[in-house]
Formats: sequence, C-alpha cells, structure tokens
Amino acid sequence: MAVNKSVAGLFSGPKTCFLRKLSGSASSRLDLSGIFAPIPTPFNSDESLAFDKLEHNLGVWQKIPLRGYLVQGSNGEFKLLKDDERVEMVRRSRHFISKDKLLLAGSACESTRATIEMSNLMADAGADAVLIINPCYYKSAMNEETLLKYFWRVADECRVPVVLYNMPANTGIDLSVPLITKLAKHPNIAGLKDSGADVGKMAQVVHTTKGLGFQVLSGSAGLLLPALVVGCVGGINGFANTNGAELCQLISLFKEGKLEEAGELQRKIMHPNALITRIWNVPATKAVMDAGGQLYGGPCREPLAPVTKEQLKTLIEAFVKEGFLPKPK
Amino acid sequence: MAVNKSVAGLFSGPKTCFLRKLSGSASSRLDLSGIFAPIPTPFNSDESLAFDKLEHNLGVWQKIPLRGYLVQGSNGEFKLLKDDERVEMVRRSRHFISKDKLLLAGSACESTRATIEMSNLMADAGADAVLIINPCYYKSAMNEETLLKYFWRVADECRVPVVLYNMPANTGIDLSVPLITKLAKHPNIAGLKDSGADVGKMAQVVHTTKGLGFQVLSGSAGLLLPALVVGCVGGINGFANTNGAELCQLISLFKEGKLEEAGELQRKIMHPNALITRIWNVPATKAVMDAGGQLYGGPCREPLAPVTKEQLKTLIEAFVKEGFLPKPK
Amino acid sequence: MAVNKSVAGLFSGPKTCFLRKLSGSASSRLDLSGIFAPIPTPFNSDESLAFDKLEHNLGVWQKIPLRGYLVQGSNGEFKLLKDDERVEMVRRSRHFISKDKLLLAGSACESTRATIEMSNLMADAGADAVLIINPCYYKSAMNEETLLKYFWRVADECRVPVVLYNMPANTGIDLSVPLITKLAKHPNIAGLKDSGADVGKMAQVVHTTKGLGFQVLSGSAGLLLPALVVGCVGGINGFANTNGAELCQLISLFKEGKLEEAGELQRKIMHPNALITRIWNVPATKAVMDAGGQLYGGPCREPLAPVTKEQLKTLIEAFVKEGFLPKPK
Amino acid sequence: MAVNKSVAGLFSGPKTCFLRKLSGSASSRLDLSGIFAPIPTPFNSDESLAFDKLEHNLGVWQKIPLRGYLVQGSNGEFKLLKDDERVEMVRRSRHFISKDKLLLAGSACESTRATIEMSNLMADAGADAVLIINPCYYKSAMNEETLLKYFWRVADECRVPVVLYNMPANTGIDLSVPLITKLAKHPNIAGLKDSGADVGKMAQVVHTTKGLGFQVLSGSAGLLLPALVVGCVGGINGFANTNGAELCQLISLFKEGKLEEAGELQRKIMHPNALITRIWNVPATKAVMDAGGQLYGGPCREPLAPVTKEQLKTLIEAFVKEGFLPKPK
Repeated sequence: MAVNKSVAGLFSGPKTCFLRKLSGSASSRLDLSGIFAPIPTPFNSDESLAFDKLEHNLGVWQKIPLRGYLVQGSNGEFKLLKDDERVEMVRRSRHFISKDKLLLAGSACESTRATIEMSNLMADAGADAVLIINPCYYKSAMNEETLLKYFWRVADECRVPVVLYNMPANTGIDLSVPLITKLAKHPNIAGLKDSGADVGKMAQVVHTTKGLGFQVLSGSAGLLLPALVVGCVGGINGFANTNGAELCQLISLFKEGKLEEAGELQRKIMHPNALITRIWNVPATKAVMDAGGQLYGGPCREPLAPVTKEQLKTLIEAFVKEGFLPKPK
Repeated sequence: MAVNKSVAGLFSGPKTCFLRKLSGSASSRLDLSGIFAPIPTPFNSDESLAFDKLEHNLGVWQKIPLRGYLVQGSNGEFKLLKDDERVEMVRRSRHFISKDKLLLAGSACESTRATIEMSNLMADAGADAVLIINPCYYKSAMNEETLLKYFWRVADECRVPVVLYNMPANTGIDLSVPLITKLAKHPNIAGLKDSGADVGKMAQVVHTTKGLGFQVLSGSAGLLLPALVVGCVGGINGFANTNGAELCQLISLFKEGKLEEAGELQRKIMHPNALITRIWNVPATKAVMDAGGQLYGGPCREPLAPVTKEQLKTLIEAFVKEGFLPKPK
Repeated sequence: MAVNKSVAGLFSGPKTCFLRKLSGSASSRLDLSGIFAPIPTPFNSDESLAFDKLEHNLGVWQKIPLRGYLVQGSNGEFKLLKDDERVEMVRRSRHFISKDKLLLAGSACESTRATIEMSNLMADAGADAVLIINPCYYKSAMNEETLLKYFWRVADECRVPVVLYNMPANTGIDLSVPLITKLAKHPNIAGLKDSGADVGKMAQVVHTTKGLGFQVLSGSAGLLLPALVVGCVGGINGFANTNGAELCQLISLFKEGKLEEAGELQRKIMHPNALITRIWNVPATKAVMDAGGQLYGGPCREPLAPVTKEQLKTLIEAFVKEGFLPKPK
Repeated sequence: MAVNKSVAGLFSGPKTCFLRKLSGSASSRLDLSGIFAPIPTPFNSDESLAFDKLEHNLGVWQKIPLRGYLVQGSNGEFKLLKDDERVEMVRRSRHFISKDKLLLAGSACESTRATIEMSNLMADAGADAVLIINPCYYKSAMNEETLLKYFWRVADECRVPVVLYNMPANTGIDLSVPLITKLAKHPNIAGLKDSGADVGKMAQVVHTTKGLGFQVLSGSAGLLLPALVVGCVGGINGFANTNGAELCQLISLFKEGKLEEAGELQRKIMHPNALITRIWNVPATKAVMDAGGQLYGGPCREPLAPVTKEQLKTLIEAFVKEGFLPKPK
C-alpha cells in the first residue's frame, strides 16, 4: 500500500507493531454503510447519568434497521462529561446494544496522548471503532501537517479502527480534501463523518480516495440524499435519534431508484432537522424525544439550557407538519 | 395570489401596472430548466470588447444543447465594464444567439434606481430575463427587510422576469430561505441561481416554494447532481463555458435514472471545476478555453491577472486527467 | 528611493513620466494630520443630488478646525451614484470648500482602468488627493500581488497623491501589513485610512513605514485616541459629520498630554459612534444631522432605508446622554 | 447593588451564602492593575510535568515587577492537561510564587458543574482568583442568556473572585459589551481579560462599568498602550513570559506621560509579539524562552508541534532586531 511519504517513518515503533495486528488491505475495512444514531446522553434531573433511561432508549431504537450507534459524539454531550463518565457510557451502551450493531465511540481529547488513551479505554469498553474530531482550541497551530501527524499517530496506536470527524461549525476548522486524502491511506482509518455543509467536498473525497475502501458518511440528515448520490455510504445523523426509521427509508428509496419519492422525503426532513441540529441543538433533540412519548429526552447538562416553551411549540409544529411526530390530541 | 403583507401596497402604482402585463400564475413562468453558460466577456489585448470573438464563441457553444446563456454575470466580469458596455454586450449577444435559447442578463447595480434602469435597458437590448445579485457594499444595512424591498421593487418595475442571484463568496451576504420564500411569491420573479455551497438550502427553497412555479438553479457545476436530486431544475455554471456538453450529459443521465454513471461524472467534475471557479476564477476559465483550441479566452480586465505558467500547467493536467481536455500532443 | 523589485519596471512608461512630476522624497508628501469629515451626499426627496444642501452643510462645517473633507467615501454613498454624479460632487464641493482645507475624493472603481480615469477626472475637478479602496468583488483573485499591482499602477498614473483605503467590513478583504509597507514606498502614495478594528495593525504600519513620510489615519472615531498614541496622525471619521468639533478637541487634548480627559472623551464617543457607523450606518448619520438642527441630513438612496422611529429614538438618546446632541426641549 | 433582573433569584441558595462571604462593594475588589505573565507549563521530553523547571522559571520572573501570574491559561496549555495536572500546576506554582504576587488560575471547563468544581479546587490549591473562559464547543447554543447564567452561577459558587476571559480567536465567540456589563455587577466578578483585537470594545466596557470597580486587562501586549489610554489597568500578555520587564516599563512610561517613548516601545513590540502569540503560538514562546538562555521553554504537548528551524531563525531575528533578545554571538 502506498504510504504518504511525509509521515512514513515518523512513528516506526508503533506502526510496525500496528501493521502486524491489522491486515491493512482496503477490503478488510469495517463496513460503515447505513444510518447511525448519535445518541444523546440521558441525565437525571440532578445531571447525573441515567443508565436506566439509556437502556430504555436503546430498546426502542433497536426496532429500527440502523447500522449502529455513535456513543459520545456531539449529540452525546461528550464535552460536558468527565473522562470516566465517557468511558462508562460506552461500556453500558455496549451492554444494551445487540452484537449485530456497530458501536462507534467519540474518543477525542485535545492532546494526542489523552486521545490515544481514551480511544483504547473505549475500545476495551466495547467500541467497534472510534470517532475522532480534530483538536481545535489552538486553532492557529492546527495546520495540515500538525493534523496529519495527530490523526496518523492516533490511528497507529488505537486498537480499533478510526473514523475521522469533521465538524467545522463547532471546531472552527474544516479538514481539507488533501488532508483527508492522505489520511485515507492509513490502514486503520476507515472513513469520515463530514458534518460540514458542502456535499461537493464529500464528492471530492469519494473521488480522491477511490479504491481505498475509505467510506464517507454525511453528518447531516439534511444532506443525506445528496451525499448518497455522490457516493457516500450513509449517515451519522442527529435526526436518527428522533426519526431513524425515516432515514433508513430514505436510503431504501435511493437504492430502489425511487428518486422522486426520495427527493420529497429529503425536502420534508430539511426544516425539522435544522431545528434540532444547527439551530437549537441537543436540547431540542431531547425535547422532541420527550414529545414523541416513546423515548426519554430529559435535561442537558448546563450550560446547555432547555428549549423555551415557545421554541418547543415551534419544534412540535415543524415535526407534526411534515409527519415526523403524531398530531398532539 | 397571496402577496407578502409587509411589502403589499408599498409600490401600488408600478405593481398594479405590472399585474396587468403579467398573468401572475405559476404556469406562465419562464421555463429555466437545463444548463446555462455564464459566458465570459472577450477582450482584445488592449482590454477593449472583442465582439468578433464573442460571435465566434457563441457559434461554438451553439452546437451544445444548452438552455441558454447568462450574459454579464460574475464570469462576464460585469463589475469591470462600463454601464454602456454592459448593455452593448447584451445587444450583441442577442444578435448572435438563436431565438430558441434564453438570454439572461446580469443587470444588478448597487442602487435600486440604477438596477431598474439597467434591467430595462437590457430588456430592450434583447434579454429574456435579468439576473439580479443583491447589493452588498453597505453590508450591515442589507437586512432582510431592506433586501426584500429592493428585489420586490426591481421585480415590480422590470419589464422582463427577474431571477435572483445568491453569491455569498463574492458578496459576503447569504440570502436567507425566508427571504427567498417571500420573494418567490412575486409573479415577476421566476427563480434563483444559488452559488452558495449548501445544497441543503436549495432543497429547503424547493420545499418552501412548492406550487409557485419558482425554479432553483445550481450556481456551481460541483453541486449539479446533488441539486437535481433535491429538486433543482438545472444550473448556471462556469464549467459550461469549457465543458457544457458534459453538464448537459449529466442532466440526461440523471433523467434516465443512471445514477451510478451520473455520480461518477459528477465526481470527475469536482476538481477541474473548483480550479476555474472558486480557486482561480475567470482568468482560469479563459485559459482553459484557450487551451482547448476551439474557443477564444483571451485576457481579463485588470486587476484580474492572467494565470501563471505554473497554474496553467496544473489546470491543463487537471482537465486532461478527467478527460475534459484532449491530451496535448 | 528603494523601489519594490517585483513591480519595478512593470509600468516603465507612466512611472518615468510620473517621477518627473513628483519629487518622490518623503518630505514633499501631503500633510494629512488632523480630522477629515467624510461627508454624506445630500439628496432631495426624489433622490436627486441637492447641491444647495451641500453648500449649506459645508458652510456649517467650515467653522470647525477640520483638516479637510473626504468627498465620495463610504459615507458619501459613492457606490450608489453614477460616474458623472461622483465627479460632479467633487467639483461642487471644491467650489464650496475654502482653499486651506484639503479635499480628498473617493475615486475607486472595480477595474484598474476605470479607477485611473475616475481619479484623474476627480483631480481635474479639484481633488487634492484621491482615496482608493481595493477592488473586492472578485475576492478570491485579490491576492497580495494583484492588489500591489493595482494600487501601484493607479498611483503611477494618477495626477494627484493617492491615499489607500482599507475597509474590511465592507469589502471582505483586509489589506495586509506587508502589502501596505510595499505600497508606502511609492512616492505618490501618501498614506492609509484604516477602517479596520485593529489598532495594533496601525501601529505595525507606522513602524514598518518609519521614515517614509507615510501617514496613517484612523477610519473610526472609536479608535482615534488609541490610534494617535501608536503614531497615527489623525482620522477620517463619520463621527466628524455630526461632531467634528469634539474630535478636533480630542486631538488637542492628546497633544497637550491631557490623557485622562482625552480617555474620558474617547469613551463617551464609543457608543454613539458605533450606532452611526458599524450598526446603522449612513442613514443614522443623516438622521442625527437632521436631529441636530443645523445640518441637512435628508434621505439616502435606496436600497439604504431610513432609520425607524425606534432607532431614531435610541440614536437621539445615545447622543444626548453623552452630550453630543442638545437635549430636546 | 443593582442586580440584573433576568438572573436575580436564579441561584438564591448559593448567592445568599456567597454574599455573606464577600462584601460585594466595588471597593473591596481585587486590585488587578499591572502586568501578569500567563506562564507556560514546562514539560520534560516525555511530556510529563517538569516542576523543577517551573520553580526555576518562577525564580527568574520573580525579579521583574510583575503584578502576578496566570497559571493554566491558553499559554499554559490548559486544554492539554488532565484535570489533576491542572490543579497540581496551581498548587506547585503557589509554592514557588511569593505572597505579594497574585496567582490567577485558569479553571474553565465546558460544563458549568465541572468549572465550579475546578475553580474551587484551584482556590484550595492557592489561587487568588480564577480566570474563566466561556464554554465554546456548542457554539450555536452559547447565546447571551446562556453565557450570562453560566458566568453568574460560577461566580456565585466560586470561593475566590472570578476574572472573565474573552478569547474569540480560540473560542469562536466574542463576549458582547452588554453581556460583560451585566456580569460586571456581580460582586464576585473582578474584571475581564480581553484577548480580542478591538481596543474600542475595551473602551466601551470601561465606560459601561464605570464606578463598579470592574477592571479590564488587555490580553495582547500588542494593544497594551492603546488599552491603557482608554482606561484599562494592565495586561495578561504572553509577551511577559519572554519580556516582562519591557511591558512593566511600558506601563511606567505611560504613567509618567512619556507618550512618545511609550509609543516607540509599543511599536517595537508589535511584530515579535505577533509571532509568539497569533502566528506561531505557545511553541514559539517556549522557543524564545530557550533562546534567551535564562528560562526553560522545552517542548509542548502534542499535537502542538515545535517551531521549525526556519521559524526559529525568523523568531530570533525579529526579537534581536527590536532589542528583545541579545545578539547571538
């Protein structure tokens, strides 16, 4: 396999070791195609972790043909949990999730060594793969070379496959196509979740990584169909927490070539999805989960504030209007 | 027809007058579906307008099943021409373009009165419709209400249909979905060219303007297929200046349901297209036109600088690699 | 004089010619120290130019120890006037302004040739110097080399001195310190009006252009004192249209070393100034001029909308609170 | 004392408790005037904490008339340390710092509860006050109301005074003047470190918080003199790690009214300071510390990469040129 020269040899110890463990051939990569729910972390009213609610929710989602779950992503409030809580969320989730579903775990920290440590703790706790967002606090220092080295070393030392996570709205950094293309050559990097708004970039990545088995997932349900049509294999979408069945249906319609119906469904998703992702975020997802009656949403950890009554009304109207929530009686 | 209340009555004179001229029903709107080439303005070496080269180029493009042409858009260096030159470009182009092709003319100025005057001069010179970009110099003053009033009044007083033009990379302003949705109710506003990177926004606009006959066109060839799949009707794409046939083919593949081939073609377009649009702009388009041997590219007006030798080499390699330029002998 | 090598020889004709006209030594540069009012363009209710109101206003401002006036800057709505109107505003203003006051004229267009032509027309109409903002529509093409060539050539061919104008909030482009430093070596470039928010950048430019006679002016009254303390020579400030006397006083306090009083005055200026510049812009300046009772503000050209009643109330309260408008009776 | 109504009563328990501990009058606020060094965290070559080097460095800095130190700010790589390491850095520093110097500790975490816990742990470890940067990962949720509640509650429950920390370049969020003005009314919020580039904003805050004893510190040495002249009381500046004596001298020159000398010194600081803050960041600070020969810089924690040889050369030249490093023999 062609290895990018600028990093080859940088970490000779771990890499050699790593290559013994993994086959490194594209064909052996984890199959990421389908829809993943990036599940929220349920809290009790005192902000402690509510594992009983976690079990309940995963039981409900189990009936949907999801490919798997992302535990401790942005929707999982990973930035608001303590290190041990993050690992515990993965361990408990693994216990409640059936074996045929993939468990991706969000394991990124700001330092390289902490990310490696957290990734392997989560692997030990049952994660099939880890999702790694780039460090972002020292923005001006996060140039392409630094990010390449960061992800390459983490992938080298992590015991399960790595999925890159690009989330420019939260990090203020947009992983470039050349950077992703170089990283796609690492045998332990399986794919990318792109939560940027530019589906053209996803198309470029699919093109530049052709033949490597590298898989691109749309980070937004609002771009799922456009992403599929340019070659992405699925999505990790907050909207799957409230309406996973509809996203699985969208993939089916696409596969069956029913483009008109698919387009119609995609358009109906746009506004409700925007409300619970870009606009009002995690508290809104939890509010819609509560409103649906089947799932537990509950509070977020502060500083995330609950939606206001007015926002809740708008949310419910938007979901009901497009048929994503039953009409309130 | 439902008229937005916040502007109803603002321009009672012209609007009443206008409503007599147009039917106002969605069915009567101009059909904008297909590919438009936003043609560059050919200059002689002294930066004067080269109408003979214009005639030559339009003769070449005539063989491609384009829906029409945009004269004096961003690719036409409209900001670098004098007012009378802008109108003359429309007049001459109309003369060289066959009747069955639509001629859209870029008529925007920064002031409302100048835009109205220019629009009607271009209509008199043969434009079938005008493309209007928002004023952008006084950014902080260009709130939704001001932009609504601007476009509404221009549409009221313009003798041909108006197409909205959203180009955030150049203007620093992104026309919002609510604004576009309100404007779509004006009977003389036929559609939108969106040159933003977010195809999700195009999907939203298609959804919120359903039933109005309002048509959305992708401003970037890099988003053409994703745009089509969410309900857009075509594109006004700089890439059509160098490779219009391929874009028409992409639409055909989409209509025939050949999604795999369409996806492959879309991905091949990404990088060459980025080079002549986002990255190196109009001078790069002209350089590729010259390199192809059939069209006249020529110089841009200063301050736009010609591509460097190194950039030209990269350009040609990128186009040749994907089969969009013949291999140099 | 050391001439930047990358542009030397580019325009040998005009430059040689130019060097005969100007001495090129720093000592001969125009003295720009003091306060300039960037006067608004007065319109009648039908948006035609109101030269009688122009004469009236200049008569009022004449009593203030301003260094001079900027005619056709951003506050002068230069983007909303026709070419001939722009020149006529300079001609008339020159007629009404006494000889001892400098008249700077905003002459920039998007194309190099149009800017040169406009600059010389304005020089003929009586401008002592021209203020040139960078072209900004084709943002991605406006790299340092292109902008260097643009300003250098304009300065070469312009019959009066050039003042650079950096206005990132409106243009989306921030002229860099290295670029300005190179341009400062041109004998016909006298200085810079910096309307950016970073006074540290002004300090850097003062430092890198030391000994060249190049002068930096603050574009915002809100940064006048900080700018003076790092070595700027004055300001071209929208606030001078409504409260020029106070800005002249601020300069006096600074020169007399009365820093505490100067600081107090500077702080009082902040909020009212922000309202009529960054926040509500030209229409707010005109509204405060009208409210003061001595000057004519009048309407702006559309799309610039008049301030609302509520905004007017806030404006007047803010100016009255800090003593910049008399209390309404 | 006037308490902002929108948050009054929100945290009645802790606040009442808090008011017993603090007098709440402006006069009792901590005096923050002067220069603080935001010290870097020294690491051994294996990235472990090097407390011996910490002791050494603090011994060197002790000879400079600094007001105090910020331990675990951005320059202290706080985002790259484990929670217990952060507290230990404070504990050890307190041990090495003399009693007459203030020790500010950077205690922010993303969740409210973690920030409160960390703040009190650091207070117990010897911090005189804590510096709190706003949470920033969930950007779209961090509106003014949420941030107000966050800081207010932390200030309520923290056993030592709180200093707000605005750092838009790293967080992507700029704390607004109205928000800061409201927070300034909390008796346990002593001031603000503003690391934004807009000294006009600092002027506004000084004006709107007049009489409250609220103190504003410039976060950048590049804006120190402009900040002083508009009413700030000092700075917390990365440049103090390498050249604290010069910053203390700048304050002296300002106090003595020697503005010309002060301006000259300020301008000399600009470029070297930009290199070790905005441009190359913490690794550059450490490199200059090593180059000076007196202090220990050492490596950063990954992903922060050491400066390249070329960057080091540029750094040393820039510091030597302005007299901030002795000439290498």
